[in-house]
Amino acid sequence: MNGAEALIATLVASDIELCFANPGTSEMQLVAAIDRVPGMRPVLALDEGVVTGAADGYARMAGKPACTLLHLGPGLANGVSNLHNARKAGSPVVNVVGDHATYHLAFDAPLTADIEGIARPVSHWVKTSATAAELAADGAQAVAAAGGVPGRVTTLIAPADAAWTELPADYVLPAPIAAPALPQVDADSLAATVAAIRAARRPMLLLGGTALVGEALMNAGRIAAHCGLTLHAETFNRRLQRGAGRLPLVPLPYRGEIALELIADVDLMVLVGSKRPVAFFAYPDKPSVLVPPGCTVHAFAAPDEDVPAALAALTAALGASAAAPVLQAAQLPPMASGKLDTLAIAAVVARHIPAQAILVDESITGSLPAQQMSIGSAPHDYVQLCGGSIGNGLPLAVGVALGAPGRKVICLEGDGSAMYTIQSLWTMAREQLDVITIIYANRSYAILNFEFDRVGGGPQGPKAHDMLSIGKPVMDFVAMARGMGVNGARAETAEELDALLAEMVRTPGPHLIEAVFG
Amino acid sequence: MNGAEALIATLVASDIELCFANPGTSEMQLVAAIDRVPGMRPVLALDEGVVTGAADGYARMAGKPACTLLHLGPGLANGVSNLHNARKAGSPVVNVVGDHATYHLAFDAPLTADIEGIARPVSHWVKTSATAAELAADGAQAVAAAGGVPGRVTTLIAPADAAWTELPADYVLPAPIAAPALPQVDADSLAATVAAIRAARRPMLLLGGTALVGEALMNAGRIAAHCGLTLHAETFNRRLQRGAGRLPLVPLPYRGEIALELIADVDLMVLVGSKRPVAFFAYPDKPSVLVPPGCTVHAFAAPDEDVPAALAALTAALGASAAAPVLQAAQLPPMASGKLDTLAIAAVVARHIPAQAILVDESITGSLPAQQMSIGSAPHDYVQLCGGSIGNGLPLAVGVALGAPGRKVICLEGDGSAMYTIQSLWTMAREQLDVITIIYANRSYAILNFEFDRVGGGPQGPKAHDMLSIGKPVMDFVAMARGMGVNGARAETAEELDALLAEMVRTPGPHLIEAVFG
Repeated sequence: MNGAEALIATLVASDIELCFANPGTSEMQLVAAIDRVPGMRPVLALDEGVVTGAADGYARMAGKPACTLLHLGPGLANGVSNLHNARKAGSPVVNVVGDHATYHLAFDAPLTADIEGIARPVSHWVKTSATAAELAADGAQAVAAAGGVPGRVTTLIAPADAAWTELPADYVLPAPIAAPALPQVDADSLAATVAAIRAARRPMLLLGGTALVGEALMNAGRIAAHCGLTLHAETFNRRLQRGAGRLPLVPLPYRGEIALELIADVDLMVLVGSKRPVAFFAYPDKPSVLVPPGCTVHAFAAPDEDVPAALAALTAALGASAAAPVLQAAQLPPMASGKLDTLAIAAVVARHIPAQAILVDESITGSLPAQQMSIGSAPHDYVQLCGGSIGNGLPLAVGVALGAPGRKVICLEGDGSAMYTIQSLWTMAREQLDVITIIYANRSYAILNFEFDRVGGGPQGPKAHDMLSIGKPVMDFVAMARGMGVNGARAETAEELDALLAEMVRTPGPHLIEAVFG
Repeated sequence: MNGAEALIATLVASDIELCFANPGTSEMQLVAAIDRVPGMRPVLALDEGVVTGAADGYARMAGKPACTLLHLGPGLANGVSNLHNARKAGSPVVNVVGDHATYHLAFDAPLTADIEGIARPVSHWVKTSATAAELAADGAQAVAAAGGVPGRVTTLIAPADAAWTELPADYVLPAPIAAPALPQVDADSLAATVAAIRAARRPMLLLGGTALVGEALMNAGRIAAHCGLTLHAETFNRRLQRGAGRLPLVPLPYRGEIALELIADVDLMVLVGSKRPVAFFAYPDKPSVLVPPGCTVHAFAAPDEDVPAALAALTAALGASAAAPVLQAAQLPPMASGKLDTLAIAAVVARHIPAQAILVDESITGSLPAQQMSIGSAPHDYVQLCGGSIGNGLPLAVGVALGAPGRKVICLEGDGSAMYTIQSLWTMAREQLDVITIIYANRSYAILNFEFDRVGGGPQGPKAHDMLSIGKPVMDFVAMARGMGVNGARAETAEELDALLAEMVRTPGPHLIEAVFG
């Protein structure tokens, strides 16, 4: 057994069963090990942004880390922006990055780079293993440090000689290491929160992270019903269970001024798996902190604490355990007709979401309509970009499909955003993932036209206009999908979109619809 | 005038006239400034790997820095791997990266990241400007630190508030700062080199960097003719002038064992703009340093010194100024026929290279045949990946086309490599660049099958085989090209490739040919 085999065996023993990969020469020993050690499923992607974004999506649904296999510093660098997103989403991801043999580094070969330096800005834990035995031991540490959900990004650097060196015959694999238990909210904090809620005139819980699924979410509903308080989710959420029979939860809107208006009369904001809300960007004449005047922010449970346990304790302490949460009725928007826009797309999609579907939303300017229209759709998980680096949606769709097999995935995707990681389509085809991708083809970085004004860009001249427009040349997403083995079709009206979705929801994917408008 | 306008005006005054861009909200002031300040041409790309790879290519041909405009940490991160390549190629690139307003950083908004940390592994110079006035002053510094050719990567971080703050009415733009002069080779080193060459039995010059163009290259040829010494280029070169009427220079082969065989009897290796040759990767039973036993390595001019001046001085000191270099005769390979392989593609391409074309080569396993077949083609510039991070070729083609307008670009590109930055095709169409891209569609990471054996991967099982194969599903590059506005066609035989190239060389581009084989 060599170092690479010991590492892969240790990862498998640590319950890592899937590896998103784009390997190169320095990772060939690890590829060989994946071949020889049973239990690890490799999923190949053509670009590392797909690898890391898919790992994020997988972790969100599987509730445990995915592993990535990346080619030295440059391969890792290509995955950094989606690791940034994974980090902000609290997704556990274990990166395994190959490196030159330790003795080869001194010669400064072309691919030599500061891998630890590239890893550090997005990694909670970084280590380069010096020997074959260290590699497996560090692998166990990397999984433990990544944790469960919420979790962290860890990066293990595997020099080629550590990977290919044979271990002694009496070598024993390291035992898996349990992730440290999540911090618990203590009794004092619980009592203070109960007191603050009872004293407030218009209290609100701001839910985020692990508060948004399962029993935790239902407990929030019980508290809301019992205490008459308001619930909101953060603007961007890793995984939110919603639809008919679930809480009618409204995320805080992206535009700070609208968010502030919505919660204008709140006098107590209790943070439950969430952070104090702040503006996505700074603007010359707008506030950075989105808390209304006179509202106290009360930190109850931080995103990296045991939020479900905290909510259970709070429910009991408030005497809300028997309360019946207000649940959303099943209710579909009326069918749209004629030309498409973000409202029409949202309406048609909302009518076709199958029960237990996963809705991945990176439609940017389409997100608010999509949320509004689908609130009474069949129950589904809603998965969003959490770190703001666009190009997350298509890889997330790959990952959630693999992390929750048997569930339909619908991915709402801006045309500009899609193009950062369009290579995802190939992995969808290769793995025959049950994903319907809907491209919002407005041929514009639409959000930027809006933001240009908000930051005081003044009147747009031709160069500025051109830099925000992606309609020259017009992209043909149906052709690109076909080029990567994905069935595609174009819709220009609500009726066309409706017919395509009806067919594609019935037929296992992958599929792509280019929804043309604007 | 605000900080953004002052920065753009300073860049223009510093002779930066082109900006490869993928901006977001935090860069909208800079977009507005490019609009208002005359003299800066923005070139939009859909992915930051295209932005930075194109900047590398532009710098190689224009001989001065290109500027990039990138969206905070994640946007920069997406460009890091091609900045790694630019750094290894000695290309001057000035990155301008937006950031949140300084006061907004404390709130940890989704896109907040350690931008300096992301920049540092690939940047010679990194600075965050605190104010509007600093922004322009730092811009002048960033250009100076990037230098000319050879040059460096510099990264200037522009907080949104520095960009939008108005400067006082009496503000004066900073004066452009000249790049520091390149270090010169001193008289002692020159004398020692002359003595070493005269004393050697089989001396060789290893040429790299700026030794490979113009008068520097011809001086190397004069020295070779006068002293009877051997010339080689490094394995990977930023820009090599070759073809009929130029030196018949052979780069050292990628495979170390073949390189060592080629230079087995050399007893003196003089480094001229090059570094001591090392293996691209380490292998369990192969040497890292590619210098034959008994050969002395003599460092004459380092890549970042004034190599052309050093070569001129060496030519004079050796008395070789009047020598006539041996030049390559015009000579085309015979036409290939039938099914394609790397040899047949290389032969057909070699016959169609127009005079003064630029050949960008990221065909990986196709490179050696391409070099051999085209040695007597019409004179052309040959541009390669220098940092080993694949996904450089298509962006380089974008950049060289913009850096040397009026010259035909032919880009030889592996299918696997192409898919990292396939978005380049859209920028080729948008800017109507005269580029013919030839995709080597062997549906495999062919180099990795070869490397798997070399690192001792053992017999390939099904998972390993699958991870090196990209033929499931088969990609249709013609469809993808069409999807991004580029005219495409497929060739399966030498005759088809020949007919397509004949037509495309006549017709201004962009074009793409999918050359199917394997």
